[in-house]
Formats: sequence, C-alpha cells, structure tokens
Amino acid sequence: MALKNKIDLNADVGESFGIYTMGRDEELIPLISSANIACGFHAGDPAVMRKTIALAQKNQIAVGAHPGFPDLLGFGRRDLAASPEEIKDYILYQVGALRAFSAQAGLKLQHVKPHGALYNMTAKDKNLLASILEAIASLDKDLILVTLAGPDRKEVEAMGAYYGIRVAFEFFADRAYNADGSLVARQEAGAVLHDPELVKQRVVKMVQTGRVTAKDGHDIELQADTICLHGDNPAAVNLAQQIRFSLSAAGVTIAALETFI
Amino acid sequence: MALKNKIDLNADVGESFGIYTMGRDEELIPLISSANIACGFHAGDPAVMRKTIALAQKNQIAVGAHPGFPDLLGFGRRDLAASPEEIKDYILYQVGALRAFSAQAGLKLQHVKPHGALYNMTAKDKNLLASILEAIASLDKDLILVTLAGPDRKEVEAMGAYYGIRVAFEFFADRAYNADGSLVARQEAGAVLHDPELVKQRVVKMVQTGRVTAKDGHDIELQADTICLHGDNPAAVNLAQQIRFSLSAAGVTIAALETFI
Amino acid sequence: MALKNKIDLNADVGESFGIYTMGRDEELIPLISSANIACGFHAGDPAVMRKTIALAQKNQIAVGAHPGFPDLLGFGRRDLAASPEEIKDYILYQVGALRAFSAQAGLKLQHVKPHGALYNMTAKDKNLLASILEAIASLDKDLILVTLAGPDRKEVEAMGAYYGIRVAFEFFADRAYNADGSLVARQEAGAVLHDPELVKQRVVKMVQTGRVTAKDGHDIELQADTICLHGDNPAAVNLAQQIRFSLSAAGVTIAALETFI
Amino acid sequence: MALKNKIDLNADVGESFGIYTMGRDEELIPLISSANIACGFHAGDPAVMRKTIALAQKNQIAVGAHPGFPDLLGFGRRDLAASPEEIKDYILYQVGALRAFSAQAGLKLQHVKPHGALYNMTAKDKNLLASILEAIASLDKDLILVTLAGPDRKEVEAMGAYYGIRVAFEFFADRAYNADGSLVARQEAGAVLHDPELVKQRVVKMVQTGRVTAKDGHDIELQADTICLHGDNPAAVNLAQQIRFSLSAAGVTIAALETFI
Repeated sequence: MALKNKIDLNADVGESFGIYTMGRDEELIPLISSANIACGFHAGDPAVMRKTIALAQKNQIAVGAHPGFPDLLGFGRRDLAASPEEIKDYILYQVGALRAFSAQAGLKLQHVKPHGALYNMTAKDKNLLASILEAIASLDKDLILVTLAGPDRKEVEAMGAYYGIRVAFEFFADRAYNADGSLVARQEAGAVLHDPELVKQRVVKMVQTGRVTAKDGHDIELQADTICLHGDNPAAVNLAQQIRFSLSAAGVTIAALETFI
Repeated sequence: MALKNKIDLNADVGESFGIYTMGRDEELIPLISSANIACGFHAGDPAVMRKTIALAQKNQIAVGAHPGFPDLLGFGRRDLAASPEEIKDYILYQVGALRAFSAQAGLKLQHVKPHGALYNMTAKDKNLLASILEAIASLDKDLILVTLAGPDRKEVEAMGAYYGIRVAFEFFADRAYNADGSLVARQEAGAVLHDPELVKQRVVKMVQTGRVTAKDGHDIELQADTICLHGDNPAAVNLAQQIRFSLSAAGVTIAALETFI
Repeated sequence: MALKNKIDLNADVGESFGIYTMGRDEELIPLISSANIACGFHAGDPAVMRKTIALAQKNQIAVGAHPGFPDLLGFGRRDLAASPEEIKDYILYQVGALRAFSAQAGLKLQHVKPHGALYNMTAKDKNLLASILEAIASLDKDLILVTLAGPDRKEVEAMGAYYGIRVAFEFFADRAYNADGSLVARQEAGAVLHDPELVKQRVVKMVQTGRVTAKDGHDIELQADTICLHGDNPAAVNLAQQIRFSLSAAGVTIAALETFI
Repeated sequence: MALKNKIDLNADVGESFGIYTMGRDEELIPLISSANIACGFHAGDPAVMRKTIALAQKNQIAVGAHPGFPDLLGFGRRDLAASPEEIKDYILYQVGALRAFSAQAGLKLQHVKPHGALYNMTAKDKNLLASILEAIASLDKDLILVTLAGPDRKEVEAMGAYYGIRVAFEFFADRAYNADGSLVARQEAGAVLHDPELVKQRVVKMVQTGRVTAKDGHDIELQADTICLHGDNPAAVNLAQQIRFSLSAAGVTIAALETFI
C-alpha cells in the first residue's frame, strides 16, 4: 500500500438510549469524517439513530453502522458465545435498521464497524470475520468493513477481496503496540498512552510513514486507514480536537473512507 | 372502486422468538399471497426473520413488514402511549431491519401492516395514520400500507394519496361488523363468528359483491383488498385452507396486493 | 389527621442502567429520609440496586421500591394498557428483586412508590390502586404505599386500611394545585413553579398548616407525609438542599415515613 | 456419604414467556419433587412465575429458583463473559423476584439451580462457584445450591460448608459419563443416551449403589442427590414417568432435597 497522506477519523456515536445520554456527539461529530452509529442492540435507539444521522448529515460526514451484541446491560462489551450464523443475522438486522434512517435522510451507509466484544472477536477469529464479510456482501457490496489494523492486514484484505468487500484498518491512537503489530493487552502496564503530545506524534507518524514505535522501542510497519477518536468527556473531545489539528498542520488530508479506500 | 374479483390473502407470520415457536408458518404460508413478518419488537428475531423470508420466497409469495410496539412481554397487544414521532421511528427501524433480510434474499418488501395495538390505534387515530404514512413515504414510496377496511375508506385513501402511498384495506373473515362498517367490539356478544361455513360465505360474498351482512341483518358496503388468515392451531390452518378453496371455487383470483392495488 | 410537624423527604434514585448514569444520587441521598429505588423495569439494574442500597445504608435512610412498567426505552413514563393482574405481578417481581438486595444488606424495605405512568395511573384508578394494595399486602403488610396527596385522601386511607396497608401521601413542591386539591396538569400554564423561594414557602406552609395556596389564590387543605425531591442536575440538588434547610429552620423534623405513619 | 435410598427428582419449569408456551409443566410437575422455576432473565415472566408457584403448591412439591443469564434470545444457553460480581447480582435479583411469588403463596424457596450456560460455567469455575455460594449465603442460608455431580464433589461440599450453604448434586439420566466422573461432551459420539430402558437402569443403579457405568465400560463412583427430568415433548414426559415408576418399583423414596440433604 502506497502512503496516501490521507486519513479518516472515526468515532462511536449515537450511543444514548431513551432518557439516558452518552457521549458528546454534538462536539465530536464536527471533528470526524466517519460516524459509527449504534443500532439499538448494545446502545442507541430508533430516535437516537434518526437524530445522529441528522447530526452527521448537517456536518457532512460519512455514516456507518456500529452493530453490537444484544447486551444493553453490558454495553456490548462482554463476549457472548453466539454462533457465526447468529452474528450474521444480528449484523444484518442492525445495519438494515440504520439504513432505514439513512435512506430517509437521503444518505448511503459507508461502512460497518463491529462494536466492543464483537469487534474484538472479529479481530481474532477469521471464521467469524468471514461470516461478517459474507453478511455484509449479501446486503450491499459498497459497504466498507472497518476492523483492527495489525500484522494480518494482507490476509484480511484478501478475505475482503474474496467476498467483494473493501476493508479499512483502524489505528488506536492511545494504545501501545507489540513488536508484531498487535495491541498490547489492556491489563499490561503501559497498554494505554496518557500523554497527549505522544499520542499526537504517533498519529502523525503512522499516517505519514506507515510506521509506529512498538513497546520494545523498535519501529514497526503499521498502515491504517482510520483513527478512532473518543468523546466520552471534555478531555477526550479536547484530545480529538488536538489530533485533528496536528494532522492538518502536518498536511494530512482528513477524508471519509469511501473517498480513498 | 370497481370490483376486481381478486383478493389478497395475508397472515401474520415469523412470530417465533429464540427458542419459542409460534404459529404454523410452514403450513400457512403456502395458503397465502402476502406474509406479514414480525420484526423483533413484539415478536420475531433476526434468525426468524431470515428464515421466514426464505420460506415466503420458496412459496413465491409477497413479503411485508409487521412492525409492533416494543413489548415482547405483551406481544404488542397492549396500547402504549408512544408519541407519533416515536412510532414513526419504531416503524422505520423495524421495516429497515426486515428490508436487510429481504434484500439479502433478492426480494423487495411489498407492504407494511402495523401489528396488534399499533394496528388498532392506527385504525382509530388519523393523526397517527398520517405519521405512519409519512414514515413509510420517507423510506420507500412503493410500500403499500395495510389497514382496516371500514367506513372511512375514502378518507384513508385520500390520505395515502397525499403522501404518495397506496393503501390496502383488510377484511376480517371471522368478525361481525356494525351497520356503519366498523368492527363489532370483541367484548360484545357475537363479535367473533365461529361457524366455518358462515365465514366462508361472508368472504366470498364480500369479494364478489363488495358487501357484507352487518350485525343488524342489513347488507352494507365493505370493500377490502386483503383478508387476514390465521395459523395458530390446526383448526385455524384448516379454516384458512377452506377459505382459500372457497374463493378459488368461486372463481376469485388470489394474488398479492402489489399486482392489483 | 393532626399535624405532626414531621415530614419525610423522598427521591427517585438508582435510575442508572448499565454504563448509563442518571441522577446525582451521591449528593441527593444525604438530603432525604426515604429512597425510592428503581427495580430494573423502567430503570436500574441489579448492580445499581445493590450499590444504591449500600449508599442509602451508609446515609442511614430508609429504602423503598420504585417499580415501574417494563419500558426502559420510555423510562416508564408512557401509559401501558397492562391489566391490574399484570401490574400486580410486575410490582411483586420488582419489589421482590429489590428485597434480595436489602436483605443482603440487612435492611428491611419501608415502602413502595409506583413510578411514572404507573404512579399516575394508580392515582386516577381506584381499581388499580386496590390491586396494588392487594399485591403489597400479599407480600409484606409492613410495606407502606406512597401515592399522590389529593382530595381523595380519606378514601385512599380507607382502602389501605381494608388491605392492612399504611398509605403515605406525597406533595409536589414545585407543582401548582387546583382548588379541589388535584395537581394542575403539566400542559397548563403555571403548572410548574420555578421560583425557589416560593417553592420553599409552600413546602414549609404545607407541613406546618396542612394547607396550600391553590391556583385560584385560595388556600385549600392538603396534608401530605412526604415530599419528592429531585437530583437530575446541580440546580435540582441545590433546591433540594434549600428545601431541607428551610424545613429544619422552621423546626420541622425530617424523618423516614415508618417513624410516624 | 452413606446411601440413603432417597432421591429428589427435579425439572426446569416455568419457562414460558408472555404469549409463548414452553414445556408441559402441568404433566411434568406431578412427577417431580423439586421445581426449578425460571426467573425472567433467560425465560419466564412475572405471571408465569406466579402460576408456576401455584402449580407446584397444588402438587405439594418444593420450589426453587432457576436463574440464568439476561439472554432471552439465546435462552440463557450462551456463555456470557459476565464478571462474578455481575453474576452474583443477577442471581440475587432473580432469586429475590421469585421469592416474592413464593412468599405470596406462603412457600419458602428450597433451592437455587443456575440455568444453562451459567450452570455449566459454575460447574467448571470454582471462583464463580464461590461467588454464587457467597451470594446465596448473603440472602438466605437455608437455600440449597444444586450443581453438577462429578469428581469434585468433596471439594464443592467443602466450599458450600465454608459459606454455610448445603449443596445438592445432580445426575443426568440420559448422559454418558467419562471414567473420571465428568460428563461426556455433547459433541462426542454417544454423549446422549436414547434407550429408555438403559436410562432407567442407570438411574436406579446410581441411586442404589452410588455407581454408574462410564463410557469405557468400567463402573465409577457417582453419588447424586437429584435427577433432572425433562418435559419438552410427550416422549420426554413419558420417560420422566417411567423413571419415576422404576425408582418407586425399586423401593427408592422420591423426596424433595430439603428432607434429606
């Protein structure tokens, strides 16, 4: 992959539910180029989905589905031993539901990014990944699957090509990476980076060079197409803002996935 | 409306949920021309939706959405004081979810028929009806809305025309009608007809003459496009079969709504 | 009823759910004498229930159940046409679930206060009220039912006595009252009072004289045992604090219902 | 453990939900001595819980809670990566809810038997088992925990003793056992026994001798206190009946756990 000097910025939004508010979507959405919208299983509800589509439309960013496990109580963060067949059905259901609201707004869904435990399971289990690619392909071959950037990028791309689905790879700005390009597990010391300056430097470097400094101090190759930003609290929004400004200052174009994948 | 000597036969199907089975879909679906498929709020789940679409496809009948209130515990039969805005969102969500499975199967949804309490509220409340028509129109103007046949048919048709949505009217084969064309309330004596012969006669007569004998003994005008059949138990399936045979024997063409509405 | 110069202060707490936070329980609970704890149907979850019981225990206040309709999406605020039998079962289920956590903590539940739409329906429908009293009596005759103070106080007390259940009556500090002692409907102008000074004056007057100034300017009799405080936002908590201080300054004893009902 | 020539017969009942019916409780409950009643998370609902308690009471059998994961869609059969703390709260909630209905009927709960995936996880994970014992002990030390009989019986008894909770061990009449006393995994050939005569022989032998013939043909020690019967279909009820009759014919006393544990 040639370096494109382009990057997509994504965020998980539309995670409110009923009377419950989650996230600072109004502040975060103007900073990103692609919105991952919860679809009512682990978070989100029909009204929230409609309003989040409207907010994305107003800010002229791309919209995608963020399907998760049917586990509102656990926010979709707990592994559930659902079968690949069940998961395919869950994804189709949720993407379909969101498509009604995007269709209503005259928008086309750009991508699908599994949420939480489903995201992690997909990154680890190629059978599950194949099922999900098959499900997405059966619905709409223009949809892009967003998954974790790592050492298996070429294999995952080949799988996507087999199903006729483009795959975008995601970089975690505030996470340490092992020498093999995998994420340092959260329970290990140093797994999460807390210094905003370091985070910004790593982001710009990854986009411009396709490399990141691993935990052992050596640089490794890690090419990603999109970076996940957070908006849970004012500090997170502030960091998102700084990352965006750093990228712009470095001459990187921030653009939705569909424009360059 | 000129009599067409055509009728659609519809049934509520896909009402199983998880490990729970409901209805005799395998026996009922071959008898009908349009399937109302539950969408996971009051009944149905993603796997059931996929399988019901497949069963309808195998039997070459039309498929439609049967959205209901988010009340699995009450099977969507209890009035819920949701706002028209909330109901619009619930309908879009459910129709969208089902569309993913019909799209996967290469089928187009033909119609939307609200379920249970939502059906009854829609039949009574023109503001709600307008909201639902607006919601459907915002998603897909080819969708037909199925609602209760009654004395307000012309008004409802005019509302549909305003939103660009075709409306189909439903006749209840086993229910008594008041002189004004409304249904006799379930709690009144004689509201439900139990004699299969009488039911069959009324169905054939309604289709061929556009008239039904009201509770007071006089014939009234009542033109409907579709008749709801049931498959809850062997007797219901048997009656559905007899109604179908009676119509065929009387030279009536049984056809999906979209072919003649 | 003789004036006791005592009042209970209650609040709806434990309304968080999963990852979603609602209300400022840590600030509000020290200000009240009785906590109405959500039980998982309209809000709350098992972990939240346990933690809320612990917080109440730490602050040495009484705990009660706040059961609602099974409508998390609508926060239990929407009328649901459930039958009295269904409602009895819902209340028993929820009170029972909360009792497990209070028993674990060595506490006894003091009261039951229906939530939202269920509260309003109970205040209007004596058949439903009877059902609820019967349900509570079948579980534990020491439980106090909290319901709306109004012109039917004597009738409601008689109903409670019939079922062997004490009833406590609730006053809304920030709501206007009609001349007959009923609440001015929310959609009417002036239904909600926004002046903290006025609110405090009305509270103290109601406790000390058993009278409140109705919307038409005349004083009416309105005797209540408990006042509902809110903690949705910092202003609400601040008002709760001021009400508590005003009552103390006026020599009113703030005490849990069970100590004086 | 000395052989008592006594056995408890248990079954999972009260698994209907809303309009959905599951199991043949009316036929099965007269055949058993202990009912495991679903509590609304993986199956069951408030009305079903009340009715199942009433049915058990009419048949004078003991009642217990059958708590499961909050996964109605998967009937609690899918592993969910909930923490021990979360699981404790789920169990307390569910046992508490059922206790309200048993209290209403004047009955005391006898036991707690985790359901489905939670049962299997408990049988494999001693940390989880400890958490569950702790949860039960915090609620009511008279409750008996029902878990899988196997080679770790003494260890599990010791754990129960530590928390002050009696433990009952369950035998699966229609399952093959490995030489170490563990169940043959379902995916292995011969895991499930289909010959009713063989099933009956094994049951009687296990009760009378404390031994069962393992898959490798050798007899092993396996002492159990209760046997799970099924009522999903007429054949299952018929087998349950035959097992009961075989035990009676062999002079075994069928009695609820609390009478001999």
